[in-house]
Amino acid sequence: MLVSIADVLPHSPLRAAPLRLPAGPLVVDLGVIGPGKVGSALLTQLRLAAPRLLRECNLQLRLRAVSDSRHMWLDCDDDALNSRIHGAQTWRPTALNEFAAYVAGRGDNVAVLADCSASDAVAEHYAGWLGAGIHVVTPNKRAASGPLDRWHRIAQASNASGARLHYEGTVGAGLPVVQTLRDLIDTGDELLSVEGMLSGTLAWLFNRFDGSQPFSALVRQAHEMGYTEPDPRDDLSGVDVARKLVILSREAGLPLSLEDVDVRSLIPAFLTDCDRAEFMDRLDELDAPMAALLTEARASGGVLRHVARLHEGRASVGVQVLGADHAFAHARLTDNVVRFATRRYCDNALVVQGPGAGPEVTAAAVFTDLLRVAGAMGVKRCA
Amino acid sequence: MLVSIADVLPHSPLRAAPLRLPAGPLVVDLGVIGPGKVGSALLTQLRLAAPRLLRECNLQLRLRAVSDSRHMWLDCDDDALNSRIHGAQTWRPTALNEFAAYVAGRGDNVAVLADCSASDAVAEHYAGWLGAGIHVVTPNKRAASGPLDRWHRIAQASNASGARLHYEGTVGAGLPVVQTLRDLIDTGDELLSVEGMLSGTLAWLFNRFDGSQPFSALVRQAHEMGYTEPDPRDDLSGVDVARKLVILSREAGLPLSLEDVDVRSLIPAFLTDCDRAEFMDRLDELDAPMAALLTEARASGGVLRHVARLHEGRASVGVQVLGADHAFAHARLTDNVVRFATRRYCDNALVVQGPGAGPEVTAAAVFTDLLRVAGAMGVKRCA
Repeated sequence: MLVSIADVLPHSPLRAAPLRLPAGPLVVDLGVIGPGKVGSALLTQLRLAAPRLLRECNLQLRLRAVSDSRHMWLDCDDDALNSRIHGAQTWRPTALNEFAAYVAGRGDNVAVLADCSASDAVAEHYAGWLGAGIHVVTPNKRAASGPLDRWHRIAQASNASGARLHYEGTVGAGLPVVQTLRDLIDTGDELLSVEGMLSGTLAWLFNRFDGSQPFSALVRQAHEMGYTEPDPRDDLSGVDVARKLVILSREAGLPLSLEDVDVRSLIPAFLTDCDRAEFMDRLDELDAPMAALLTEARASGGVLRHVARLHEGRASVGVQVLGADHAFAHARLTDNVVRFATRRYCDNALVVQGPGAGPEVTAAAVFTDLLRVAGAMGVKRCA
Repeated sequence: MLVSIADVLPHSPLRAAPLRLPAGPLVVDLGVIGPGKVGSALLTQLRLAAPRLLRECNLQLRLRAVSDSRHMWLDCDDDALNSRIHGAQTWRPTALNEFAAYVAGRGDNVAVLADCSASDAVAEHYAGWLGAGIHVVTPNKRAASGPLDRWHRIAQASNASGARLHYEGTVGAGLPVVQTLRDLIDTGDELLSVEGMLSGTLAWLFNRFDGSQPFSALVRQAHEMGYTEPDPRDDLSGVDVARKLVILSREAGLPLSLEDVDVRSLIPAFLTDCDRAEFMDRLDELDAPMAALLTEARASGGVLRHVARLHEGRASVGVQVLGADHAFAHARLTDNVVRFATRRYCDNALVVQGPGAGPEVTAAAVFTDLLRVAGAMGVKRCA
């Protein structure tokens, strides 16, 4: 016999427990560490987006302090998002914990530090900050790819206090990579493999390397255009890509360290330790081995690509010969590409592709992380 | 003169305002509407992931009730994630508001309804539920692509109560599309265009349509393999794709309705109103016009693809001739592809690609939305 629910619950009202909405706007006090290209782009984005976030999301972002490696600027003005770093402010010697304490010392407000440095010394502070209830958002790869014991201390501090650490910008800059993988895992999917082209610089070099000019000429060209790090070996070594792969592997529950990644550097051993000027002078010593690789690829009808791969617990980074019909053979210029093969995405992978470097898109990743924190703290609609 | 921060703030402790962590686990009471393929996949995923979410994220998911269009099952067992729908339960005639009241009537717990139906009648309830503080997660396109006045009422209800509506699964199923666009907009980027292949069925048809067999044979084949809706016209009309484009346009701040989309249906007018059996019988009447399109594409060295496009405020859906070097020419089988061109991603677009349909990946999108809600309600680490 079917009975009406009214027989069971005659007086049930359509009303959930009231949500804890803040009476006024949610105020986020922000400290930015590292006002370089990414930090500056972030400050500009925050300034431009702040009015809309206040109006539509009831979220008030307040820039409280900025620090570089030697100085910090402390703001005491409530309306600071309209200020500039290089104004009539007082710069003070940087003491990062005092900096953090200044940002966090504002009653009930949410305190967030945006680490836009690439510094291991800053990452060393994360556990302390998170443990003190200060959220951290960052594209700095040092913590998430650094020593495992530190990474565990950071996770424990975050779990204990509830403060969040978000680092979407560490892989693929503004592309949705880290959160996508986390969502797959959190909803019970199982990672079978990750394949990626995780360096825009290396993608550009191998997209262009067709034998019409020596490899060293392409490196010089990329260097002049600002595509490479000041010392191109920082790209060619593959270590930066390996850091990204470590981050993704940990996200998937595989506690790898940098030493666990099989990194095949493009730099011959005899050019590893010389100074940068000598390396640039001797760049053409890369040409013969690279030309041999290209010949080998051509002989099998394939192409050369710099690929990061995580498969069956094994992580590797280096140049590979791929079939001409491989998706990576068609990637465009400096694009990053990440392919997640999972139990659910096993026939065809889940692919995210696009520009994976640059100040604006990296800053946007940090901004997105900041909105995730605000969303977690109860802000409406955003994040 | 540089002074130490200690001179300014000598007593500042490194301690943010304590975060409001729940003492025990955050309890989410869940009601699932529509226990079809997607709803059943969701129940399975929830059951498998629940132990880990409780252990690692302090999140307790409790399935409270399930409803189809005629019956509902009310659970009074706290450990219901281990139960099945088709067990020794009492089915009751569905009355959706009573159903919602049952799920929400549990003290301080977070109440979430997962609408896994494709029903407009269910979407009609969203504003009331959200206004009452009940969160809604759904792959149902009806609300987000339906009448604008209803959509505005839904947004207002959500804003007023703080209850969330998430609908990642409406476009590309489990692919990160809706949240990606929202993040771009929220961080101040500007959408220049969206181009997408948003139907796996139509992608498959045009990937296969090379002239070696008539178009109708491919439609019959797709129908037999279960790639199409029971009536293939629901795919071929392009209306479902148009709904997805409406959802993306609204997300970008452009309040379009279905009537604003220029939809070029693949179904000739004289086959629009006949019954399904007659349509299937007369399917080969599509062959001549489709063959003509293919000839036209070939003459220009291009390929045929079914494309949704939003550009300069204009939305269109239909078959297009694309150059052989266009990214969509290389898409694989049933893959969905979405390309966002924005002010920040203007030279190369941000591209998300992969399987964009199917019960498992659609359910995963609903699950991810559920984790977003839990994250917004203070759950640690997840979302």
